[in-house]
Amino acid sequence: VPCFCDITVSVDGYVAGPAASLEHPLGEGGEQLHEWAYGLKAFREPHGLEGGEENADSELIEANVARTGAVVMGRRMFSGGEGPWADDPNADGWWGDEPPFHVPVFVLTHHPREPLVLGETTFTFVDGFDAGFELAEAAAGAREVHIAGGAEAIQQALAAGALDELQLHVAPLFLGGGTRLFADGAQAEVELTGVVSSPAVAHLTYSVKSRA
Amino acid sequence: VPCFCDITVSVDGYVAGPAASLEHPLGEGGEQLHEWAYGLKAFREPHGLEGGEENADSELIEANVARTGAVVMGRRMFSGGEGPWADDPNADGWWGDEPPFHVPVFVLTHHPREPLVLGETTFTFVDGFDAGFELAEAAAGAREVHIAGGAEAIQQALAAGALDELQLHVAPLFLGGGTRLFADGAQAEVELTGVVSSPAVAHLTYSVKSRA
Repeated sequence: VPCFCDITVSVDGYVAGPAASLEHPLGEGGEQLHEWAYGLKAFREPHGLEGGEENADSELIEANVARTGAVVMGRRMFSGGEGPWADDPNADGWWGDEPPFHVPVFVLTHHPREPLVLGETTFTFVDGFDAGFELAEAAAGAREVHIAGGAEAIQQALAAGALDELQLHVAPLFLGGGTRLFADGAQAEVELTGVVSSPAVAHLTYSVKSRA
Repeated sequence: VPCFCDITVSVDGYVAGPAASLEHPLGEGGEQLHEWAYGLKAFREPHGLEGGEENADSELIEANVARTGAVVMGRRMFSGGEGPWADDPNADGWWGDEPPFHVPVFVLTHHPREPLVLGETTFTFVDGFDAGFELAEAAAGAREVHIAGGAEAIQQALAAGALDELQLHVAPLFLGGGTRLFADGAQAEVELTGVVSSPAVAHLTYSVKSRA
């Protein structure tokens, strides 16, 4: 089952700004990262919103949505919390009653929990990347596994040799600190397979050759 | 006087690999960063080498060479050394008898030294970014100041509000560690003004709006 990740990163290499919190899940300034996407039809549609722009950026997201059969994400991407679920003030996540995924989502957490169904999306809670990835592969059907983030989940996917494709949306801004997409020690053999850009963002797509 | 910088960076954000030394100035694996450039006519010509490929990458370098009137570089980019010049085993730099610059070069160092003339290039040694930049502006004539690197010089140029344009050559490889192009605290307001790519490298050009 092919596996891809796409994530927005600042020019200085961050996927979230400094001082991320429940109120500011993307840290200081981090919400600017995704400004390129908010107005696009392909972003709005899965969120149940009407209208939106259609352009090269939109086509790229649309293609990503269409090929996704299952999603793997980190705990903090799901709820921003950590530790036991009973202590997480945002335990049902910040994805609302009708989350934009519409496919099975596997949330990486060391804290056991029954699956959560919200609208068309079932969140299953799994301990460890390998276990989550295996379940996602089984759930993806004829489509692909999407590693949605954050940085830690993507680093784990790279380290496990699970990624076939890495797509970076480089947003034209500096965050000056926060969560780096790639920590020291990230290793992968990659090939540049596609570059698409608009004034709002540059999309770099790499095929990852190191898959085990 | 307009001022630009161009530098090659890995997908994971490094401009040199781990364990840089006099023998391995770009650190472990770092020499792979510039592989996209070595075969190009526009790279070979200033180095006094014949032949070479002409393509989109080559055009971009050629344009950079043509608009450069003066260069600012860090001490380590010049020689790899540090401390007093008398103790630097590579005090004349590793740029050979006919360095590829052919314009005045200002080397940032706290250690005073008389100018060094090698072929058509005069290296002037200056204490501090502001002083070096001022001399480079005066020397650039009708052309631009080029901040050649390394990461520290570029960070200083950004912090000083001296940069008008930032050009990143993103090489399709991971270094896993080494010298990061942007340290925590880098700040700039940028606009994506150009994207050029070949299978070997993606070139992202930003205009920097924060110039003081």
